[in-house]
Amino acid sequence: MSTGSFLKRIIGEIVHPSESARATRRARNVLGIARSLLSERGEVSGAALARELLAEYERLPQAAHPVFFDLLVTEFAPLAAEVAAAADAYRADPSPGNLLALQRAVEPPRQELMRRLNMAPGGTAALVGMRRLVLAGLGEHPGWKPLEADLAHLLTSWFNRGFLMLRRIDWHTPAIVLEKLIEYEAVHEITGWHDLRRRLEADRRCFAFFHPVLPDEPLIFIEVALARGMSDAVGPLLDPDAAIANPAQADTAVFYSITNCQDGLRGVSFGNLLIKQVVEELGRELPRVQRFATLSPLTGFCDWLKAARPRLERAAGGRALVAELDRLADPGWSGDEAAARTLQPLVMRLAAHYLLEGTRGGAAIDPVARFHLGNGARVERLNWLADASETGMRRSAGLMVNYVYDPADVERNHEAYAKEGRVVASHSLRALARASPLSRRPARA
Amino acid sequence: MSTGSFLKRIIGEIVHPSESARATRRARNVLGIARSLLSERGEVSGAALARELLAEYERLPQAAHPVFFDLLVTEFAPLAAEVAAAADAYRADPSPGNLLALQRAVEPPRQELMRRLNMAPGGTAALVGMRRLVLAGLGEHPGWKPLEADLAHLLTSWFNRGFLMLRRIDWHTPAIVLEKLIEYEAVHEITGWHDLRRRLEADRRCFAFFHPVLPDEPLIFIEVALARGMSDAVGPLLDPDAAIANPAQADTAVFYSITNCQDGLRGVSFGNLLIKQVVEELGRELPRVQRFATLSPLTGFCDWLKAARPRLERAAGGRALVAELDRLADPGWSGDEAAARTLQPLVMRLAAHYLLEGTRGGAAIDPVARFHLGNGARVERLNWLADASETGMRRSAGLMVNYVYDPADVERNHEAYAKEGRVVASHSLRALARASPLSRRPARA
Amino acid sequence: MSTGSFLKRIIGEIVHPSESARATRRARNVLGIARSLLSERGEVSGAALARELLAEYERLPQAAHPVFFDLLVTEFAPLAAEVAAAADAYRADPSPGNLLALQRAVEPPRQELMRRLNMAPGGTAALVGMRRLVLAGLGEHPGWKPLEADLAHLLTSWFNRGFLMLRRIDWHTPAIVLEKLIEYEAVHEITGWHDLRRRLEADRRCFAFFHPVLPDEPLIFIEVALARGMSDAVGPLLDPDAAIANPAQADTAVFYSITNCQDGLRGVSFGNLLIKQVVEELGRELPRVQRFATLSPLTGFCDWLKAARPRLERAAGGRALVAELDRLADPGWSGDEAAARTLQPLVMRLAAHYLLEGTRGGAAIDPVARFHLGNGARVERLNWLADASETGMRRSAGLMVNYVYDPADVERNHEAYAKEGRVVASHSLRALARASPLSRRPARA
Amino acid sequence: MSTGSFLKRIIGEIVHPSESARATRRARNVLGIARSLLSERGEVSGAALARELLAEYERLPQAAHPVFFDLLVTEFAPLAAEVAAAADAYRADPSPGNLLALQRAVEPPRQELMRRLNMAPGGTAALVGMRRLVLAGLGEHPGWKPLEADLAHLLTSWFNRGFLMLRRIDWHTPAIVLEKLIEYEAVHEITGWHDLRRRLEADRRCFAFFHPVLPDEPLIFIEVALARGMSDAVGPLLDPDAAIANPAQADTAVFYSITNCQDGLRGVSFGNLLIKQVVEELGRELPRVQRFATLSPLTGFCDWLKAARPRLERAAGGRALVAELDRLADPGWSGDEAAARTLQPLVMRLAAHYLLEGTRGGAAIDPVARFHLGNGARVERLNWLADASETGMRRSAGLMVNYVYDPADVERNHEAYAKEGRVVASHSLRALARASPLSRRPARA
Repeated sequence: MSTGSFLKRIIGEIVHPSESARATRRARNVLGIARSLLSERGEVSGAALARELLAEYERLPQAAHPVFFDLLVTEFAPLAAEVAAAADAYRADPSPGNLLALQRAVEPPRQELMRRLNMAPGGTAALVGMRRLVLAGLGEHPGWKPLEADLAHLLTSWFNRGFLMLRRIDWHTPAIVLEKLIEYEAVHEITGWHDLRRRLEADRRCFAFFHPVLPDEPLIFIEVALARGMSDAVGPLLDPDAAIANPAQADTAVFYSITNCQDGLRGVSFGNLLIKQVVEELGRELPRVQRFATLSPLTGFCDWLKAARPRLERAAGGRALVAELDRLADPGWSGDEAAARTLQPLVMRLAAHYLLEGTRGGAAIDPVARFHLGNGARVERLNWLADASETGMRRSAGLMVNYVYDPADVERNHEAYAKEGRVVASHSLRALARASPLSRRPARA
Repeated sequence: MSTGSFLKRIIGEIVHPSESARATRRARNVLGIARSLLSERGEVSGAALARELLAEYERLPQAAHPVFFDLLVTEFAPLAAEVAAAADAYRADPSPGNLLALQRAVEPPRQELMRRLNMAPGGTAALVGMRRLVLAGLGEHPGWKPLEADLAHLLTSWFNRGFLMLRRIDWHTPAIVLEKLIEYEAVHEITGWHDLRRRLEADRRCFAFFHPVLPDEPLIFIEVALARGMSDAVGPLLDPDAAIANPAQADTAVFYSITNCQDGLRGVSFGNLLIKQVVEELGRELPRVQRFATLSPLTGFCDWLKAARPRLERAAGGRALVAELDRLADPGWSGDEAAARTLQPLVMRLAAHYLLEGTRGGAAIDPVARFHLGNGARVERLNWLADASETGMRRSAGLMVNYVYDPADVERNHEAYAKEGRVVASHSLRALARASPLSRRPARA
Repeated sequence: MSTGSFLKRIIGEIVHPSESARATRRARNVLGIARSLLSERGEVSGAALARELLAEYERLPQAAHPVFFDLLVTEFAPLAAEVAAAADAYRADPSPGNLLALQRAVEPPRQELMRRLNMAPGGTAALVGMRRLVLAGLGEHPGWKPLEADLAHLLTSWFNRGFLMLRRIDWHTPAIVLEKLIEYEAVHEITGWHDLRRRLEADRRCFAFFHPVLPDEPLIFIEVALARGMSDAVGPLLDPDAAIANPAQADTAVFYSITNCQDGLRGVSFGNLLIKQVVEELGRELPRVQRFATLSPLTGFCDWLKAARPRLERAAGGRALVAELDRLADPGWSGDEAAARTLQPLVMRLAAHYLLEGTRGGAAIDPVARFHLGNGARVERLNWLADASETGMRRSAGLMVNYVYDPADVERNHEAYAKEGRVVASHSLRALARASPLSRRPARA
Repeated sequence: MSTGSFLKRIIGEIVHPSESARATRRARNVLGIARSLLSERGEVSGAALARELLAEYERLPQAAHPVFFDLLVTEFAPLAAEVAAAADAYRADPSPGNLLALQRAVEPPRQELMRRLNMAPGGTAALVGMRRLVLAGLGEHPGWKPLEADLAHLLTSWFNRGFLMLRRIDWHTPAIVLEKLIEYEAVHEITGWHDLRRRLEADRRCFAFFHPVLPDEPLIFIEVALARGMSDAVGPLLDPDAAIANPAQADTAVFYSITNCQDGLRGVSFGNLLIKQVVEELGRELPRVQRFATLSPLTGFCDWLKAARPRLERAAGGRALVAELDRLADPGWSGDEAAARTLQPLVMRLAAHYLLEGTRGGAAIDPVARFHLGNGARVERLNWLADASETGMRRSAGLMVNYVYDPADVERNHEAYAKEGRVVASHSLRALARASPLSRRPARA
């Protein structure tokens, strides 16, 4: 807990002692219903109790949430004595029966509580929302970890891929879903309905996963542009007034944005599965589309460049290089064409090095690279001045990468990366990386 | 294992040693895919591997199933050493971290395997089917208990009430669902499409629970007749050529059949919830319907009567009573009107006693009574010669019971039954029971 | 009117004079509502009046129908004086305004009545049913012709192809639709649900046209078998217990039954459009299916053969031929293998002649041939002993024909047939026809 | 034709003679396909020809439309000689057969052409669009009247109430429909998605009629506010940031906007039916809603006031009144509270007079009044300063009216209005009207 928030809470409690007491009382009341729901009575009146519990939980003031979560952690936990006894019995005789008893002893009652709460309409959404709050408060309340783990366990089981439905999103989709795309889009902001509509035109595709009980809530969505050739800049893709191309003439599907929508499902991974299923879908719909590539930022590149400065200074001609790179600090550098042209070879080589060689413990440094390489993609191409947005310039020096998903190679690429830490990349990118001043394997001739 | 089946297996193995070896080999092959699915590779190619695993599992010959299940039990179990170590660590320091580690150690890998298998289309249905097989073999293979427990745990979580959809079944329902009603109906056999159609006419209702990924598979269904007054015999309800009544004039909904469809979901209880939701639905659709009653068999009555014979003989005038009851052994007794009239008071009193007083450990002896009383219903009326079918005569001496679900009393009734073992019944039934020769509380006057 | 029915009506009127008067009174009452519906009041309360009218019409006893239709013909007709005046005005000055006035004068008020009746739910179905009754009674009541013409005009406009929806029928189709297939199938009777189910398995297809306001009423349906090669006998296709083939291996779609369902839509032609759209659908779903052929009866063959007997006798060796053909009169002829083998060449040649040369006024004699040739199909093959059913033997001497729909040739074939009366046929069929004893173009060599 | 447009066309033809010739050529080409579609060939290849015709028609440049319509009028008309002959035959013998022949002779071939065009997907929409163009050009091309009449006849038949579906519009409606509400709303402009969303919140309802083949095209829609009491001003209803009321507490449904969407369906009346069905729908959903009222403009009031000035001047004290009314010319008059208070009684009385007495040939002068009175509504209340929008002030002097739809009285009210020209109004409105300086029936006392 930071000093600031600690003080704030102290002061809060001093100023509003009664409010704090009231919050506690209300949280305790809600958990009283929870106990009924877990009791014998819950067997027969479960649905009604679950509805009541949910309604009361949702009426809790924000101040009561920490109390509520604290109590869930402490009072709906496995009983230490029971766990210990079951553990002892198992130690003495590791029979199936004793194992089963131990499994039961270690399962917290709040797991069953959550399952019963789910009988109420809206229960699943409430549990996802609860995990969002718990995750957000974990820094301040590390004691909530067991509660978070239980929620994660349950939601991972319930949001199993087998239960998700892939749905295409287009202009026939209900507004209640579309407005969520506008709200959630995290990579390239959607500025409004006009912008959104362009992203759903004939030369675009958008797909999302949904859970059957949350038909209005996309879990994750991906935006695709159908193009001739791999896009080398994101600006034209995002222009709401760009001309609409004929999708029948496209040979490439460019995945230019993928967004996880539900904070409460963090760590319940859908991205890998979504990309693969969308590749299948598009292959069926548009047999002429033969290449599936992303257009992705290098979100960690500029930070890494800063950190790499000392190493770079030590390289041959390092001081001059560093001086040249300093120009990137000038926000308008890309507007100076001559300067940009001078910078390009150096920055491209360093970026290639960053992607291909900059691994940490066998894993790529760049988080986006880590995701796509982990899914079996190949690093195909670096694009200069491909994202002129403020964020793009600040984090990626305007660069973007195409990762290519080739269904035939995905598994092999993944193995190479996961087992040997080897990044599969195109010839040209490998050449660029070898030419980097930081390369340990200097470029031939 | 019975001697018969043991011999059969021995002989099977003698005659076809190679077949047995082949079954083992095939089961091992399938589990090889299962291991891949659990490995690193499963992270990236999970969906494809799950599909492959499922396809191979479904191609397994019947002979390979026992081997397959045996291996799931032994090779996909928690590692005893790891469990022991985690248990020790927890004993030494019962911290949340150590609890979490212990929880993870006791969870069998086959749980995760099942969750991953579910990525394949058809996965859920396959797991339900697997549990059906495991349950059916449990008598012969008690070692499968841990596997069965894992499947039960998973399916209980996945078939949570919150995920089920109530759907009305009528003549607009797809044939693929309707034919399953014909196949599954367990209480009053449906003889074909003509019979089924009558059960879906305007004066009937049928509802079922479905899971979103099994849209063609009813999990449980209930059949309802809309009537004026509580039905006192099931024959007219089942007559496929009976005239169709006007549902707008009905005041009573008679639940005359409720069937669990999926053996693989045994113990995952839906019946209680289904009845309550159907009561709500009908109340909305037909506000004039004020009474919700079942028309149910006394499935254990005749067996109980046989067992009660010695006690009855010891009662006042017991020998004569027993002699009279012996007539029930004659299959045509109900055709002899005079005999039937003589038997009626005695049998009705004994049946009332059976229902109201015949408890064992606080629970009703009759399994159907146990279900409805546990749900909070009240025993309302006994009906003489209400089910003339062969089964009805053999098990229930032709008697049927009306249990009444009164939404206002359900919870109180349940509490009375669950906590005090008290059966809530109508005046008339209580009077009948008191008049029973076995009654400890003799009827007044 | 036949003497029988005339007498029946006379007697009916003698016996029940009051019933007849009551029928008239009721019909007049209904038409009173009809007049309100056409009046000013209908403008504001149209929907309510239409509902009332429909309800009363449907309650009319059968005896009142003829009265009702008679009155519709006489009292809701254009006024002769108005028509004459408008005709005169147009004769004097054929201006657009006078034409419009004449158009309005000749439109019978019952047309507008029917359009307004359609505001009531169920109106369209009622009008289709009304035309069915009117058509059925036309022989006895030729005066109903104008009423029939009005209904035909309206229904042709409303059941325009642009409003029909093609739907695949399979085991997921609601039972309420499926039972109508069983009821309506006119070519090869469906004996029940078991039989129906086989016709909807993986190696079969069934499609129907529906109108949006009659979602439970197929208008026309077609049954298709997916096969390797063109089927040469219908028995195996109809066997409910035949093994199910793999549709992915089929190269031919065999249209073995096409049924118009609504007598009230007679003459509103859908068959041609249905076949063509089904060819498109199957081409999309199963690109390996390259041939689209029917397996059709020669429904008029045996009748024609009887009529052709004198001509045949006059041919070279005619007496012997006729004697041979007489064997067909023996119901068991096909069981005598030797006899059948002797008959085959002669009957096949005559059948080919019947199909290819037996035209009347440029049109094929056989009604089924007329339909398929008019649609642009080609006569491909005659199949010996292809339909052993009682009807098949009696009407077609057991023969069946394959007509082939080749999308590339359909229009050309149709033109040849429609303009020149030329039947497009395969080489082998033409050779067979030339070898017929009735041929005017004797076979070469 | 106005001089301007005439000159423009002359000049157009001078400048681009070739373009004009090309337009004619293209229009003729399209009609060549139309002739094929009507020919024998259309029988077999109708769907393909219709698709071709539609595609070519839609590719026609705007300049070719007048040529196209001219040719449809002249070359696809009934043949005068045939009509005359049929008329003569009918005159000589008015038999049913001759009537039928005359009916056929007067039906223009373009009617059948339109019905066949409708076989193409998109045909119905194209015909609606064609009528829109024809209607728009009718002033300039009065010769198109017969074409317009044919389109009207066909579309009236096809858009029969029995084929329309009432759908509720809310935030679950696809965006493709919602954006059309924004585009079409004609009464109170929707400024964007934020505004639209408020109009679809829990205390609002929106319903539209759709035709099955145009599922994305509302034909007419109505916007309703659920309120306590009748709204007396439209501003609060339109405020996108107004608080959302609880619909369960509403007792009144206020219809504040009704918009016909399709110019091509002008005169095909849906409004009356829509209001009545929405009253039914709301009655079912919200039994507490007992009053159904509009909040409507007096669109012709200010114009009428201007025209009534001479008459007013002649009334007692007329000069002073006219001088007072002149203040309305000052756009800011309503901002001057004192002035407004002085004006109110006079303007309200005149408005009441305008609504209740200002009839022309038995029909109300105000077009909105004419619509609602014709539907059987009652004039209930005049609301002062109820619409402060520029249009509202300019046309209605800021006044709005509540018309009340009382299902029990609708038919009687309609009869009174339609047959006797009597406007049914509340007491208070009648009192206001009597107090008007123009009243012929001076107020008592």
